Amino acid sequence: MTKPAISYDDILDAARQIKGVAVRTPLYESPAFNERVGGRVFIKLENMQRTGSFKFRGAYNRLSRLTDTEKAAGVVAFSSGNHAQGVACAATMLGIKATIVMPHDAPALKVARTKGYGANVVIYDRYKEDREAVARSVAGDSGAVVVPPFNNEYVMAGQGTAGLEIAEDLQALGVTPDQVLVNCGGGGLASGLFTALYHHFPGISGYAVEPDTMDDVKRSLETGTRQSIDPDARSVCDALLTQSPGDLTFGVLQHLGVTGVTVSDAEALATVGFIARELKIVGEPGGVVSPAALLHGKVDGRDKVSVCIVSGGNIDPALLKDCLDL
Amino acid sequence: MTKPAISYDDILDAARQIKGVAVRTPLYESPAFNERVGGRVFIKLENMQRTGSFKFRGAYNRLSRLTDTEKAAGVVAFSSGNHAQGVACAATMLGIKATIVMPHDAPALKVARTKGYGANVVIYDRYKEDREAVARSVAGDSGAVVVPPFNNEYVMAGQGTAGLEIAEDLQALGVTPDQVLVNCGGGGLASGLFTALYHHFPGISGYAVEPDTMDDVKRSLETGTRQSIDPDARSVCDALLTQSPGDLTFGVLQHLGVTGVTVSDAEALATVGFIARELKIVGEPGGVVSPAALLHGKVDGRDKVSVCIVSGGNIDPALLKDCLDL
Repeated sequence: MTKPAISYDDILDAARQIKGVAVRTPLYESPAFNERVGGRVFIKLENMQRTGSFKFRGAYNRLSRLTDTEKAAGVVAFSSGNHAQGVACAATMLGIKATIVMPHDAPALKVARTKGYGANVVIYDRYKEDREAVARSVAGDSGAVVVPPFNNEYVMAGQGTAGLEIAEDLQALGVTPDQVLVNCGGGGLASGLFTALYHHFPGISGYAVEPDTMDDVKRSLETGTRQSIDPDARSVCDALLTQSPGDLTFGVLQHLGVTGVTVSDAEALATVGFIARELKIVGEPGGVVSPAALLHGKVDGRDKVSVCIVSGGNIDPALLKDCLDL
Repeated sequence: MTKPAISYDDILDAARQIKGVAVRTPLYESPAFNERVGGRVFIKLENMQRTGSFKFRGAYNRLSRLTDTEKAAGVVAFSSGNHAQGVACAATMLGIKATIVMPHDAPALKVARTKGYGANVVIYDRYKEDREAVARSVAGDSGAVVVPPFNNEYVMAGQGTAGLEIAEDLQALGVTPDQVLVNCGGGGLASGLFTALYHHFPGISGYAVEPDTMDDVKRSLETGTRQSIDPDARSVCDALLTQSPGDLTFGVLQHLGVTGVTVSDAEALATVGFIARELKIVGEPGGVVSPAALLHGKVDGRDKVSVCIVSGGNIDPALLKDCLDL
């Protein structure tokens, strides 16, 4: 097996880079959640991160490393919404021009927010066009740098800083986790966060959690080679609609021995409602699949210490209203 | 002026009493909120406290001090909902029988949750009956101890532990606040929290924030004597519907030199929507009046370091849905 794309030191380096710029988000132990799961659960609240999701961490770590020439040429990113906002916000803070390629079915709120952070938005058809080709064509001869949403060392290490903060907070409490569950699309967050947490707590079990219609990472881990999802597959978890893991992210997850698990869309939506009513926090469907896996017994949390994450809270108000009744 | 009812040492004592039982809630600095206010704002998230509001702190501090004889006789409390839940939950944890007297118009959710924590609930008419008389009649000859919602030294000191945590977190960040805004009903939270924060930061300006139809504390502070609200006054902030401050709470607020300010119901409701959409947290109307005062310029936060609090998140889902559109 080849050497993993990122190391613990890369995450320490990313943490120095984003210090004072990213929000150091809370690690929340909720009595109501503990009671439902039957064990102790610590929830990292990345919905409270700048731009409403963890994506700002990786975007800022990547963009702040560009050379002056690259910064002058601008950046291009392709994203259903959270990476878009992270790149747009980081670019504005760093004085870089950003163009974001977004799918036609991205939540209206995410498109509006991405524009609000100052980016130029280009829309493409998720099911008919290849977004990377569109992004490259937008970048064209301008010399603009394409910022991938997950399969990049700086992006992965940046997302990993969330794991570093979890480890610091748990160590301050004197708590050693038994298992860690992470929401997983392309694996940027999962690869970074697990790298940090396996370093601090070598005995943990790691679970990458996906929507059951988007189980490419689970099948990739089970078969040992990267698998893709059916192009006709759909999920309400718009933040997790990736075709397959990247070679870099998959390499890290495979190296660490992470296990894939899935939840249904109904379970994700019910979890959005549960955490709003009981935990008083707003999450989006793709942002709550790891708490959903614990709530719905996909991973047994009874009599254990678990860590999971609410990775984003950029949900359209109309959908949040529906979830409040679930 | 007489000696204040509680001291800083009482709050340290309360902190030892509730350690490991109450949630040590986050202090949240949101870039989106900072931008709207034009300064730095640190928001204490007591909506994430056990039972969904700060009230658990004071209730547990009071109930855990009862003698064995008192514990055996049980407790009675009168509350529109958050104190009810705090007392019910603390009583169950301590093995004490609790009867809660609640107004007929308390939010259905709060009544259901209070029963859910194991309390016996008695309903009375807020506008026709005197709740303290009802509570005493319920207590009757049983020897049950009435647990007041704010005008009690243990309750005030318990609520003050939220202020102690704020001071600790700000000192760890090396930040000194210019001003502190606290939601205010009867003044239990405000008196405790300000006692802790004026101790650590003697130069701060303190603001007690009320609904504008419930400005008894503001007028009391302005006139120097305790004032009452018009019995016909109404507000959507059900957590803050107190007739007048207590003698103990008012004495502390007056001693410290706190200033009263008010917000409208419309401003409170709009703030519930804003913090759900932008900060990804769920607050109830009475729980967000201090952030509302900053958002709506009732207290100028520009180029300052402000502290405020989301003191509760027990909002009926139907009302939260309405607020999401504001």
